[in-house]
Amino acid sequence: MRYLRNVWYQAGWSSELDDGRHLGRTILGTNILMFRDEEGAPRAIVDRCPHRFAPLSAGKVEKGIVTCGYHGLAFDGSGRCVHNPHGRIGAISVGSFPIEDRHQALWIWMGDSQAADPGLIPDLGFIDATPETARITGHLPTGANYQLVVDNIMDLSHADYLHPTTLGGMFTGASTRVDTRGDRIIVEYQASACDPAPAFHSVVPPPLKADVRVEVQWFPAGVMVLAAGANPAGEKRDPGQDSLTLHSITPESDASSHYFYCSTRPFMTDDLALSATIKATLEKAFVAEDKPMLEKQQAQIGVADFWSLKPLLLPIDTGAVQVRRALEKRIEAEKRATVETSGRP
Amino acid sequence: MRYLRNVWYQAGWSSELDDGRHLGRTILGTNILMFRDEEGAPRAIVDRCPHRFAPLSAGKVEKGIVTCGYHGLAFDGSGRCVHNPHGRIGAISVGSFPIEDRHQALWIWMGDSQAADPGLIPDLGFIDATPETARITGHLPTGANYQLVVDNIMDLSHADYLHPTTLGGMFTGASTRVDTRGDRIIVEYQASACDPAPAFHSVVPPPLKADVRVEVQWFPAGVMVLAAGANPAGEKRDPGQDSLTLHSITPESDASSHYFYCSTRPFMTDDLALSATIKATLEKAFVAEDKPMLEKQQAQIGVADFWSLKPLLLPIDTGAVQVRRALEKRIEAEKRATVETSGRP
Amino acid sequence: MRYLRNVWYQAGWSSELDDGRHLGRTILGTNILMFRDEEGAPRAIVDRCPHRFAPLSAGKVEKGIVTCGYHGLAFDGSGRCVHNPHGRIGAISVGSFPIEDRHQALWIWMGDSQAADPGLIPDLGFIDATPETARITGHLPTGANYQLVVDNIMDLSHADYLHPTTLGGMFTGASTRVDTRGDRIIVEYQASACDPAPAFHSVVPPPLKADVRVEVQWFPAGVMVLAAGANPAGEKRDPGQDSLTLHSITPESDASSHYFYCSTRPFMTDDLALSATIKATLEKAFVAEDKPMLEKQQAQIGVADFWSLKPLLLPIDTGAVQVRRALEKRIEAEKRATVETSGRP
Repeated sequence: MRYLRNVWYQAGWSSELDDGRHLGRTILGTNILMFRDEEGAPRAIVDRCPHRFAPLSAGKVEKGIVTCGYHGLAFDGSGRCVHNPHGRIGAISVGSFPIEDRHQALWIWMGDSQAADPGLIPDLGFIDATPETARITGHLPTGANYQLVVDNIMDLSHADYLHPTTLGGMFTGASTRVDTRGDRIIVEYQASACDPAPAFHSVVPPPLKADVRVEVQWFPAGVMVLAAGANPAGEKRDPGQDSLTLHSITPESDASSHYFYCSTRPFMTDDLALSATIKATLEKAFVAEDKPMLEKQQAQIGVADFWSLKPLLLPIDTGAVQVRRALEKRIEAEKRATVETSGRP
Repeated sequence: MRYLRNVWYQAGWSSELDDGRHLGRTILGTNILMFRDEEGAPRAIVDRCPHRFAPLSAGKVEKGIVTCGYHGLAFDGSGRCVHNPHGRIGAISVGSFPIEDRHQALWIWMGDSQAADPGLIPDLGFIDATPETARITGHLPTGANYQLVVDNIMDLSHADYLHPTTLGGMFTGASTRVDTRGDRIIVEYQASACDPAPAFHSVVPPPLKADVRVEVQWFPAGVMVLAAGANPAGEKRDPGQDSLTLHSITPESDASSHYFYCSTRPFMTDDLALSATIKATLEKAFVAEDKPMLEKQQAQIGVADFWSLKPLLLPIDTGAVQVRRALEKRIEAEKRATVETSGRP
Repeated sequence: MRYLRNVWYQAGWSSELDDGRHLGRTILGTNILMFRDEEGAPRAIVDRCPHRFAPLSAGKVEKGIVTCGYHGLAFDGSGRCVHNPHGRIGAISVGSFPIEDRHQALWIWMGDSQAADPGLIPDLGFIDATPETARITGHLPTGANYQLVVDNIMDLSHADYLHPTTLGGMFTGASTRVDTRGDRIIVEYQASACDPAPAFHSVVPPPLKADVRVEVQWFPAGVMVLAAGANPAGEKRDPGQDSLTLHSITPESDASSHYFYCSTRPFMTDDLALSATIKATLEKAFVAEDKPMLEKQQAQIGVADFWSLKPLLLPIDTGAVQVRRALEKRIEAEKRATVETSGRP
């Protein structure tokens, strides 16, 4: 599978490297070791010693230096060998990748490192603006190709069928608009005077009707931000009261993904019991409902090309299909650029 | 692997669709959803939504309509879409297969539906003629190609070695005859004045000698009926006292099968304790003895063609080899007919 | 993968065939059945009945004859059929392999049986010379190609990093010499006035310094003998006090190995508590440290050719690389000899 490479992928949460911890994780099919250097900056290098191919993540990291657990070669965050107990260091090194801490998350660039502009990381300032007590984060390994997971979020009508007891019930038949802004694709749902989903009952308790607006904003390749708000039907909407949730999907392999999420809210931000309730609701929806469905889809598709199976296209797929087409176009452009630069595909 | 398609395969037991239950099962490598329509007739459709390839069996079935659990498309028992919450129904559909309730079992036709004549279902009237208290049924998933399982039943001499404490001890050296009647192949064993297998001790207790007759009747592709009877040596045999057992093997994939069985007896038909004893004996023989041996055979054969491994042929293989040859001939004929009709193989 | 075939591989421990037991084991990708004949000599035949490919190891062995558990064909230790309950014996047989009991171990020859000279079995007389109370043996199935396991032992510097609490701490920087004697390759480490590894504390207790000498002797294809001795720094070394340990690696498949070991010592030979302590130390080093590392290496290498990954070569690799080159040369020579003899590769 060909991935878009010149883009930032979420590689984890910044806190995963707290307290001197290091992290081995497979991203776009490559085994990566992440750790912090002595200044505390995150570093990402290939998780494979060049000597006997031991995973460096099976060694230990101290003061920003990883020492291989097999024969003691040591590397710094640039991938350069800094200690060889058995001879000269010479040009010994492993590959490294640009990696950034931003918005509580780790972002990795798997393409041309010259082009790795941190300014291209999607703006998720809402995460930083939310007190920690109102931020709920998670990492869900999912046995499905990342595009299936992106499809899932880009078409929220699935919530009506897959999540009827929590988030669903308002999307089918809602007024839906798909927009493109730069490289972003946005799907907006508006439902007027509807029965709100159970997740909104604290804001609009039944039998009151609600006006609901949910917007999904996609950034290449797999970052999506959901803004969701409800108010009693007919009342004026306050966008400042929207709950914002990150759904960030990073390919692990052709048939598996890292699903990172971060739920935030602008209200009752110090209510830890509410945070616990929201986390339980999200985990129910993601782990017990989305994940099994996505993995069953993947099992049915197997190694076939998605389009070769001639999926039925419905109006609800507009956003998801635009995302797939936009990705294909960018991946194709990257391929052409590589051929022009290097003379090989 | 090429399967015989224009034939009825057992897909399950009728009771598996009781109480509104539905059933996802892989048959001949195809994922099938089975359920009952509002009239109670069984229906079989492809277990894959044409929209995003979710298994329909992960949805719900009500009043003969299955609703996909992912985005709510609904299908009837013919595979036709009857509800699309997101747009026009148009020509949306999934494939369907003829399926019949007969002899307490579900029978599916995976070939040309025009040719699906229920009259071709093997006559297993003995099942219906047996009171429920004397019928013992089961479904044993087996990790072996269906032809290995058919071989196993078509050569009962294996019982002398694999099932010595229950069914074996009388077949090696018994008078054996292989016959063909129409598309059936029949193997008949007769042993005179032999020590009966433990399973016959209730009929002919030791140290009495027994005359034993066992007949296996094969119907394409994987249906076999065993008739087994014993009487004290020299006494007149009463065929009406035979125990009849169905062994029905349906390919799941190249290397796995569904093994359905139904044991019946004409005597002590309301003796539930005897039924429990027989079930325990059968399960010991099938699950603890046949299944591991079949799965080890499959492991040794792997993906190789059976004949390419040059199996040693013994006189005991006559029936099993005739079945393999008959199947090959019919599969070849189907292939030719397809080429003639469609111009493609 | 092409293996060296004209060489003795350890197939197990002699005691594994005690008390009439038989043993099915995969060696060089071939399923082998081992058992003893009536004279008590070990025998090795192909573990696959030629009739229906059942593993003979699933049958039973009595008086040197194995009877297939499926249809009762019986074979002797030469692989010849000696009983066919269903017809003539004719030329029915399975393949067989030379196998020898020597040094408490079973040795199998997977190549040309004419060339199977027991005199070619590596001389491991030290095992026989050690009282049973001072011999510790084991069999560790390892999910890594045998050459990775051989590399591991041929470069003991890994102990300093992988086994710091038991065997490590003395190899990096030790005086190291690699020698060839006939078809053997020998690596010798000498460390003077060093802090001895914890495993030597009973001989040289801290804070005393030690002079340590460890020698690894490799015999094709995967047999290695370690001689290890320590004495207080400056004292005269007594080679008779060396601990000798066998590390014998036999390929199971391309990506898995049998790791047999036998630790012996010339001192405190009847101290069973010490034997238990040594066994615990070895198991910690092998099972908890080497095995996971070897299996991770294998996972990183996958099906790639080792050299195609361009491993970094260090001075510590000299012995391991000489072994790889010697094996390649012998395997290549075998291939040429086969072509010359048979006209096919």
